[in-house]
Amino acid sequence: MADGQLTAGAVAGLVGGELVGNHDLAIAGVASLDEAGPGDLTFLASARHGEAFAASRAAAALLPPRFRDLPGGPVTRILVADPRTAMLRVAGRLAPPGRPTWGIHPSVRLGRHTTWTGRIEIAPGAVLGERVRLGRDCRIGSGTVIGDGAVLGDGCHVEAHALVAPGATLGDRTRVKTGARVGMDGFAWVGDGPTRQRVPHQGPCRVGRDVEIGANATVDRGSLGATVIGDGTKIDNLAHVAHNVHIGAHCVIMAQVGIAGTTSIGDDVMIGGQAGLAGQLRVGHRARLAAQSGVIGDVPSGATVSGYPARDHRAVLRQTAALARLAPLLTSLERMTRDHADSD
Amino acid sequence: MADGQLTAGAVAGLVGGELVGNHDLAIAGVASLDEAGPGDLTFLASARHGEAFAASRAAAALLPPRFRDLPGGPVTRILVADPRTAMLRVAGRLAPPGRPTWGIHPSVRLGRHTTWTGRIEIAPGAVLGERVRLGRDCRIGSGTVIGDGAVLGDGCHVEAHALVAPGATLGDRTRVKTGARVGMDGFAWVGDGPTRQRVPHQGPCRVGRDVEIGANATVDRGSLGATVIGDGTKIDNLAHVAHNVHIGAHCVIMAQVGIAGTTSIGDDVMIGGQAGLAGQLRVGHRARLAAQSGVIGDVPSGATVSGYPARDHRAVLRQTAALARLAPLLTSLERMTRDHADSD
Amino acid sequence: MADGQLTAGAVAGLVGGELVGNHDLAIAGVASLDEAGPGDLTFLASARHGEAFAASRAAAALLPPRFRDLPGGPVTRILVADPRTAMLRVAGRLAPPGRPTWGIHPSVRLGRHTTWTGRIEIAPGAVLGERVRLGRDCRIGSGTVIGDGAVLGDGCHVEAHALVAPGATLGDRTRVKTGARVGMDGFAWVGDGPTRQRVPHQGPCRVGRDVEIGANATVDRGSLGATVIGDGTKIDNLAHVAHNVHIGAHCVIMAQVGIAGTTSIGDDVMIGGQAGLAGQLRVGHRARLAAQSGVIGDVPSGATVSGYPARDHRAVLRQTAALARLAPLLTSLERMTRDHADSD
Repeated sequence: MADGQLTAGAVAGLVGGELVGNHDLAIAGVASLDEAGPGDLTFLASARHGEAFAASRAAAALLPPRFRDLPGGPVTRILVADPRTAMLRVAGRLAPPGRPTWGIHPSVRLGRHTTWTGRIEIAPGAVLGERVRLGRDCRIGSGTVIGDGAVLGDGCHVEAHALVAPGATLGDRTRVKTGARVGMDGFAWVGDGPTRQRVPHQGPCRVGRDVEIGANATVDRGSLGATVIGDGTKIDNLAHVAHNVHIGAHCVIMAQVGIAGTTSIGDDVMIGGQAGLAGQLRVGHRARLAAQSGVIGDVPSGATVSGYPARDHRAVLRQTAALARLAPLLTSLERMTRDHADSD
Repeated sequence: MADGQLTAGAVAGLVGGELVGNHDLAIAGVASLDEAGPGDLTFLASARHGEAFAASRAAAALLPPRFRDLPGGPVTRILVADPRTAMLRVAGRLAPPGRPTWGIHPSVRLGRHTTWTGRIEIAPGAVLGERVRLGRDCRIGSGTVIGDGAVLGDGCHVEAHALVAPGATLGDRTRVKTGARVGMDGFAWVGDGPTRQRVPHQGPCRVGRDVEIGANATVDRGSLGATVIGDGTKIDNLAHVAHNVHIGAHCVIMAQVGIAGTTSIGDDVMIGGQAGLAGQLRVGHRARLAAQSGVIGDVPSGATVSGYPARDHRAVLRQTAALARLAPLLTSLERMTRDHADSD
Repeated sequence: MADGQLTAGAVAGLVGGELVGNHDLAIAGVASLDEAGPGDLTFLASARHGEAFAASRAAAALLPPRFRDLPGGPVTRILVADPRTAMLRVAGRLAPPGRPTWGIHPSVRLGRHTTWTGRIEIAPGAVLGERVRLGRDCRIGSGTVIGDGAVLGDGCHVEAHALVAPGATLGDRTRVKTGARVGMDGFAWVGDGPTRQRVPHQGPCRVGRDVEIGANATVDRGSLGATVIGDGTKIDNLAHVAHNVHIGAHCVIMAQVGIAGTTSIGDDVMIGGQAGLAGQLRVGHRARLAAQSGVIGDVPSGATVSGYPARDHRAVLRQTAALARLAPLLTSLERMTRDHADSD
């Protein structure tokens, strides 16, 4: 096989599936039913997409054993229990992430006493301050700014136009996506009107290992305490994490979520898109906050909340249903309460 | 007339209006009633602003025929049925968009096999990868990053600090505003806790013709399928479009809207600011989603929805009104249900 | 004392407190109870944190007189009525904001007729257009773009990757944080479908003195009128201010707030995170809009509103409570209204 290709037989071996059809067929890429062309592997997970399957131009398909004899569509088929997961495994094998261009572009500006270990990629126009420490295999994108004294673990990837502020720290393999801002002053004030003054921000911003911070997201540094993001936590685009927030390990925080100052979040918490959390709250482990929740009180471990103000999700569903049933009754109810009062 | 000026008579001709007053008066700019100075054209559309009109320092005004004899304000008047639209036409004539500085600044870095057609503007510090293809009359802003293999149609404008990721495509005349991120990896994971792994993103990001993507907005690429934005669709600042989302033609998507993965939106859809759409949904043509809607189910063509969970907008209004009428009744209702139960 | 240090006695003098313990102890930094190490000053404001106090490794602590004899924790104590405010004063003294590197980096591009007064800092890769005017002591971050004709007052700080568009003006001491976009075209259109056309934006964007615009926030310029942000107003990260919006003085606008076109906001208004305001509205002085409010009508001076559609906050709380009490009654109420109708 050419580089970047697999035979259908090799794909079947990789995913532990049963091959029906041409063992030597070359697979060069993966794509959805609609997008696939000759040379691509696709997948079918549900009968809902049977029509798209029949019309697909893919060379071969991953599908569950029950679809073995489905009419139409690719004739080379690999039968696996979970075609979606199998697909991802093949994708990772066929197209590994873009190969870095190791080295430092001549246009990069490096401050004094900035150090790194082993190989490194620093793209054009990046600006690194003084005393920055980079682990091995770090990648720094075009135009990225890294402030004095920042520390990056091994294998970090700070993409184009991102900013890692002075003194911020990133654990191993952490990725800061394009345009994200990590470790700047937060938004805290004392006084009112013309006498309002900024609270000085001197606390650190510590981001753990295997973290992802989404494109154009912002994570402020601490004021006196620290802002902390736990290992393995993933944060989507345009989210906001304020000063002194603590986020535990392995949380998933969707796009445009906002977390106000000094709120503390446990491990394995899921926060849906556009949810907002007021400051000074505690959210327990494994809590689930639905999209657009407005959280203004503590959330116990394991709870699922939604709505504004955020409360038990099942209660919200009951209340929303009750409200829909209320409207047509209301005129009667008003008359009844009048009659009832009259009859007292 | 000097360059960048029109006589009042020429303005009247341009907008098809009737001139009252000085035909030769020079008009050099357009401005609102409050902002206009001598030499500026202003407009009055409603009697509500009569006081501001009387106090305006504008040289001339566009206004509907019924205001021909309004006391005070500019004496040179151009009478037209729709002064606001007329104003925009004059504005476009007097101050055409900033003239590009054609050419490639010496600080620009161009990758191998990157090509363009006819004239081009690439501002200082921009970084273009390999095999990028640019149409004629493209403009690339300061510090902008364009990844390997990206393809831009004719007349595209990618503003300062924006990013067009590797392989993304933009149709003719599409504008990517400052700080927007188009075509990066999305936010999709398999597994839980420490075993959570990123789904590889290999699908394309295809942006149509005459599209606008707002400042600091993010549009992710597809995972296996494609992310697609249809011709003529306009997206405002800080909006988020996730992986595999399909948006039809001529939609208007206001600021801070978030659209989760694999949701599909028809043509001519309007989405108000801060609305959020869950993943895997279908929104029909010409639907209208009110600002801050939380959409968690499909929306039929032509429907207008609002609230969380988003539902028919008139029902939401009825329910909100019912809720306001409910509160004062509630203690009576509780007593009545007790009495009623007792009397059963 | 070494530079950047204070004795405990000097700290007591600075904050007007009573010293208990070692007058000569060297204080080099400030930190929260958890974060403090030897050499740091910390503070205790409430008995809730007594345990953390007992375990703190801080050299000294600020605390209210009633905690003078609290067991455990730092033995050098400074007694003050308001430890938090005292702490901020010490922090400001110990670690003044990073000292600028005055001068213009050789990689900076300056347009013709761009001028400044006294000293200035322009960091690597910044791009300034023509006829830009900068006051004394301005600081311009790495990669920042400032458009033709922009005017900055004295002591402005435009951070890395921010953009100040052509013609925008900033008052003295205004700070534009990293990635913020100030003064670009807004989002206004005429026509529908394929005939939809951009409204030309020619109005100014005027930002007052002592303003702060958060990281990755966007502030559009006016279309015909002006966009205006009043003196002393603070805007947090990822907020959006549309064209022709007027914001008064000394407002506080939290993260991810969105304000649509032509809305006018008074002085001393507080807007909670993720709140959204429709266009063309008026919000009076000293109004308070709760986090996530959806404001679709005018808000009187001094009012406090919340919810969607935003209304009097106490009414929202009453209605939310009523809704929770309604659900269990509903089946009874439906039966009662049937019975009542039958008995009519």
